[in-house]
Amino acid sequence: MLLTVTLNAAIDKTYTLACANTPGDVLRVQDMQATPGGKGINVAKAATALGQRVMATGFLGGHAGRWVQEQLTAEGILCDAQPVPGQTRTCINIVEPDGRQTEFLEPGPEISAEALNDFLVRFERLAREACAVTMSGSLPRSVPNDIYAQLIAICKRLGRPALLDTSGAPLQQGIRALPDVIKPNLQELGQLMGRPIACETADVLACAQALQATGIGLVVVSLGAKGAVAVTHDAAFHVIPPQIEAVSATGSGDSFLAGLAVGMLRGQTLRDTLRLATAAATANALNIETGRVHIEDVHALLPQVKLRQMPAW
Amino acid sequence: MLLTVTLNAAIDKTYTLACANTPGDVLRVQDMQATPGGKGINVAKAATALGQRVMATGFLGGHAGRWVQEQLTAEGILCDAQPVPGQTRTCINIVEPDGRQTEFLEPGPEISAEALNDFLVRFERLAREACAVTMSGSLPRSVPNDIYAQLIAICKRLGRPALLDTSGAPLQQGIRALPDVIKPNLQELGQLMGRPIACETADVLACAQALQATGIGLVVVSLGAKGAVAVTHDAAFHVIPPQIEAVSATGSGDSFLAGLAVGMLRGQTLRDTLRLATAAATANALNIETGRVHIEDVHALLPQVKLRQMPAW
Repeated sequence: MLLTVTLNAAIDKTYTLACANTPGDVLRVQDMQATPGGKGINVAKAATALGQRVMATGFLGGHAGRWVQEQLTAEGILCDAQPVPGQTRTCINIVEPDGRQTEFLEPGPEISAEALNDFLVRFERLAREACAVTMSGSLPRSVPNDIYAQLIAICKRLGRPALLDTSGAPLQQGIRALPDVIKPNLQELGQLMGRPIACETADVLACAQALQATGIGLVVVSLGAKGAVAVTHDAAFHVIPPQIEAVSATGSGDSFLAGLAVGMLRGQTLRDTLRLATAAATANALNIETGRVHIEDVHALLPQVKLRQMPAW
Repeated sequence: MLLTVTLNAAIDKTYTLACANTPGDVLRVQDMQATPGGKGINVAKAATALGQRVMATGFLGGHAGRWVQEQLTAEGILCDAQPVPGQTRTCINIVEPDGRQTEFLEPGPEISAEALNDFLVRFERLAREACAVTMSGSLPRSVPNDIYAQLIAICKRLGRPALLDTSGAPLQQGIRALPDVIKPNLQELGQLMGRPIACETADVLACAQALQATGIGLVVVSLGAKGAVAVTHDAAFHVIPPQIEAVSATGSGDSFLAGLAVGMLRGQTLRDTLRLATAAATANALNIETGRVHIEDVHALLPQVKLRQMPAW
C-alpha cells in the first residue's frame, strides 16, 4: 500500500461565470464543480488510477473534511486522517468566459499541538502498514516547518521510502532528514540553492547532483513540458515527455510523483519508473480535472516517453 | 411554536482580504467567517432572540446542509428540513480593505419533483404543530413559482397565520393565496403594482390599501431607515424607527418579520407588534452579523419607536 500525506487538504471549487468577474458586483455562478484537493490528494488519485492501493492521511476538519473523505472513498481510496476542530478549507477558482482565472484560498483550520501529536502517532501506525510514503504540499496554520523532517525520520526508522514534494521552509528543513526522493521544480530548486536556476540542463544537473550528494537517493528536477532531470548516485537521465495538446497541466507534478512511487513499489528499474512517472504526468495534462489520470492514456503515452542518459561524472 | 420556511438556504461566507480583489490573481483570504444564511434562517435567529421557540424548515443538502442544521441547533433553533441530493449552496461575500464588496452566489441543488412532494407533506405536519408560519426568500432551481401559494393554502386550511416575504413571481403568485401578512419593500411593491413607487407616504399608503383590500390581513411596506407603513382593514400606521448609527442593515427586514410574527403569536396589539418589529429591525442594524438581534438592544429601542396613525379612509 502507498501512504499519501496531505496536511493542507481542501475542497477545490470551480465557479464558472457567464459574465466578467467585476469587483463590487453580485455575481451569479453559472456552474459549480467541487473536488477534493491538495497536492497529496492528487497523488492519491493518480496512483489509484495507475492500479496502486492507496491510503490517504493528513488533517481533516468538520463537514468539509467528511465530504473530502466521502469523495476519496467513492474513488476507492482508503482514508485515515486526523480529525481536527474547524472546517477543512475551500479554495475557489473563478473562471470567466474569456478564460481569466481568479483564486481565493481560505486560511483553513489551525492545528493544535495536541492534534499534531495525535497525527504523528497515527502517521507512524499508517507508515508501518505502508510500503512507501509520499508527502506533498504546503502546511496548515500552526504546523511547524520541520513536520516533513519529522515524518521522514519516522519513515527511515521503519525502513519505508519517503518521497517529498513541497516548497519553501518545509522543503529546506525536510531535505535535512534525507528523504529517498525529492521532486523540486526549477523555482523550488532555486529556493534550495539560494539563487535562480535557469532551465539549462548543465546547471540543473550540477544542482541536482549537489543535492543528491547530501544523501538523498533520487533527485528529480521537474522542467514542466520539457520533462525532468533525474539524478541518483550512479546515474543521471533527462526524461522527455511526448508532445501533446495540453488541456491543464495543474496536477501533472503530483501525477509524476504518483508514477515515481508506483514504479518504486513495483520494483521497476529507474528507467521504467521515470517513464511511468512522465506518462502519468502527461496523461494528467490531457484532462481539465487536477490529478485525473486515465490508465489507457498512460499505456498509449508510455512508449513515446524518451529517456536520455546524461554523462556520468 | 413559530415555523420559519427557508427554501433556498445557504452557507454565508465572508472572506476578508488584506489586499485588493484583483481578478486574475491568486488571493489569500485573511479571515473567513461562516454563518447559516437565507432570509428565513435570519427570521429564525431573530425570533429566537426575541424569546420565541422556533422550528426551521426548507431544503438542506449534503454536508453543507448538515453544517447549517448543526449551527441552528447550537443556537437553540429546532430544524426539520427536507433532505435533498447535492449540497446546500454557499454564498461568498468578498470584503476588501476599502470596504468594497463582491458576492458570488452558487446555484445550489436542483429540487426534484419527489423532494418537493415530500416537502409539502413535511410542511403540513410541521404547520399543524406551529402557531404561525413565516415564508421568506427566493426559490431554489426547479421549484415552481406558486410554491408559496401552495404553502399558504395549507396554512389557511389548518387555520395558521402565514407571513410572506419574497419578491418577483413567487410574491406575485403568493399574494393570490391571500397570506395574513406581506412585507414588501418599495421595489417589491413596485413589482406588484407594475410601476415604480416613490417613498412618499401617500402613494405607498394607497398601494398598500389596494393590496390589503384584495384580502390580505396586514400589508407592511418597509421603507428602510424611514420605517414602514402598515395597513389593516380598519387602521393604518407609519412606524418610525429610532435613529441609530447603523453597522449593517442586512437582515433588518428579516428581523422585522420576526418581530411581527412574535408580536402576533403573543396576542399583542397591532401597535405593540409594529413597535416590536421595528425595534428588532433596528437592533439587527447595530451588528455586522445578519439576523443577529440582542434582546437588551430591543428593550432599549422599544420606547424610542414612534407610531403615527395615518388618516383612515
